[in-house]
Amino acid sequence: MDGPTSRKPVILITGASGFTGSHACRYFAEQDMQVAAVVRNLPAEAAPDGIRYYECDLLDKTKLRELIQTVAPDFALHLGGKNSVPESWENPLMYLETNVLPTIYLLDSLRSFPSCRIVIAGSMLVSPLTPPFQPPHPYNLSKSLQKAAALSWAGLFGQNVILAEPSNLIGPGPSTGFCALLARHIAAYELEGKIETFKVSSRTALRDFLDVRDAVKAYDLLLKKGTPGQTVRVTSGTSHTLEEIVATMMSIAGSMAPLEWGKEEGAFAPLAVQPCEPLAALGWKPEIPLETSLRDVLEYCRLQKGGRT
Amino acid sequence: MDGPTSRKPVILITGASGFTGSHACRYFAEQDMQVAAVVRNLPAEAAPDGIRYYECDLLDKTKLRELIQTVAPDFALHLGGKNSVPESWENPLMYLETNVLPTIYLLDSLRSFPSCRIVIAGSMLVSPLTPPFQPPHPYNLSKSLQKAAALSWAGLFGQNVILAEPSNLIGPGPSTGFCALLARHIAAYELEGKIETFKVSSRTALRDFLDVRDAVKAYDLLLKKGTPGQTVRVTSGTSHTLEEIVATMMSIAGSMAPLEWGKEEGAFAPLAVQPCEPLAALGWKPEIPLETSLRDVLEYCRLQKGGRT
Repeated sequence: MDGPTSRKPVILITGASGFTGSHACRYFAEQDMQVAAVVRNLPAEAAPDGIRYYECDLLDKTKLRELIQTVAPDFALHLGGKNSVPESWENPLMYLETNVLPTIYLLDSLRSFPSCRIVIAGSMLVSPLTPPFQPPHPYNLSKSLQKAAALSWAGLFGQNVILAEPSNLIGPGPSTGFCALLARHIAAYELEGKIETFKVSSRTALRDFLDVRDAVKAYDLLLKKGTPGQTVRVTSGTSHTLEEIVATMMSIAGSMAPLEWGKEEGAFAPLAVQPCEPLAALGWKPEIPLETSLRDVLEYCRLQKGGRT
Repeated sequence: MDGPTSRKPVILITGASGFTGSHACRYFAEQDMQVAAVVRNLPAEAAPDGIRYYECDLLDKTKLRELIQTVAPDFALHLGGKNSVPESWENPLMYLETNVLPTIYLLDSLRSFPSCRIVIAGSMLVSPLTPPFQPPHPYNLSKSLQKAAALSWAGLFGQNVILAEPSNLIGPGPSTGFCALLARHIAAYELEGKIETFKVSSRTALRDFLDVRDAVKAYDLLLKKGTPGQTVRVTSGTSHTLEEIVATMMSIAGSMAPLEWGKEEGAFAPLAVQPCEPLAALGWKPEIPLETSLRDVLEYCRLQKGGRT
């Protein structure tokens, strides 16, 4: 029988079938960790080596608690949640429930494993929960409450929680972010000569894009060496206008899919680029160039399109 | 048939069978309003004139939504929730769920009634939800999140929400506060010569006590004339030491039930008395003297004890 010393470290990953989650599962399995991948629906294909899937709706606190007792994780990476601003206006209650409750259910269940080190993926789109209490949209409110609840809970019960605030993560996989939508549009145009135009909200809006694979490495460092109680931005440290992104992607694609630019209304204030000091101190820096990320996004979308149609 | 103009204004009251809730139901029924009293379990006795009971667990969002559609309230007073600090350590998750979720379920359902004016009973025991995120206990965290969620939600959807922060409410009825526990101890001693001692944490701890009937009048004013978005403390404006309370209650009772005083550890920092400017501006001031409140608490406990044993 294996004694505890020969046991591989176990990492629980929620949102495991999502964009970041699927990268994280592969990455940690390759790091020789045992990955307990929590998914809403079991995938059709067999789990890769080192990954075991657990079917659980994160709002089912009883099932989640049982699962965590079974898994006995050494690390937990909470990626589950919803992240569409427009959808949050359509169903604000669902956003509050989905982004706040599983975080608390997870932390409550992990009180049985006090040495478990936990990283929660928050968002840069948060507001201070102080008067006059004006988050701009329900998604922001849900992530602001998630942050306050998680860090306060960790303080009350002495749990090792770090809140990671990623910027716009890009790369191959099932993303619904701007770069993925643009690449899908280009791939559809290439394949079908589709003439529907793609609307880009602004030429000048500045965004920080980070490859999802660099983000997962940052989560790994935070899980192993981060300072509990900290909020750590996970960003590339460089901003690009949407116009630059479009130009780079079109140049990689070698095509000119039709686009429509939104009227500049100054509504898209640039997110100030924040340096990632705590991550830099741990030896992390983004390694994948923007061009590589965009190329990989486009390749992924071309393959998806080719496979689907 | 009654037209809409002849309809009495409808007030929805949650936590209606609780200490403040039972006073509020009577008060608003006497104000010639139709009271929709939400209770977890229907009472055995028939509802008094002007009050109609609705059985609903406030965590059952579907039932709550249906109830609110039926009732179509003009006003809503949310008193439901849990308020024991020690119990919140035993079941922190229940406290977070019970104090935060019904508030959001209520507000979400009331979006169908945009002119509804809403008062939510918060607590003076709240902390700012800002770094380093250190609420002293899960009850405080639950009420801090409730406040942030309610006022932020109101801001997002333009709902008329006022957060009332009552001090220690006292008066006849099923309270579990200090004065009620002390009065029960005295009543038990009178009836049974019970010699079990009652522990008072501190002689010098300062607390603000307000008669629950004065608080209900304040809620009435806030519902009708308060400024949406505001947080309003509902306090007597006068602090008393626990020793003063004990001495007054003993003097009213004319008995000396055995007491034990806790060691002064400076752990009970006085809650700074906050003036109630917004309420004073609306013409409110506390009317019931402390002695009357304490006398009524004692009378209530004597009757309860007499009836029970």
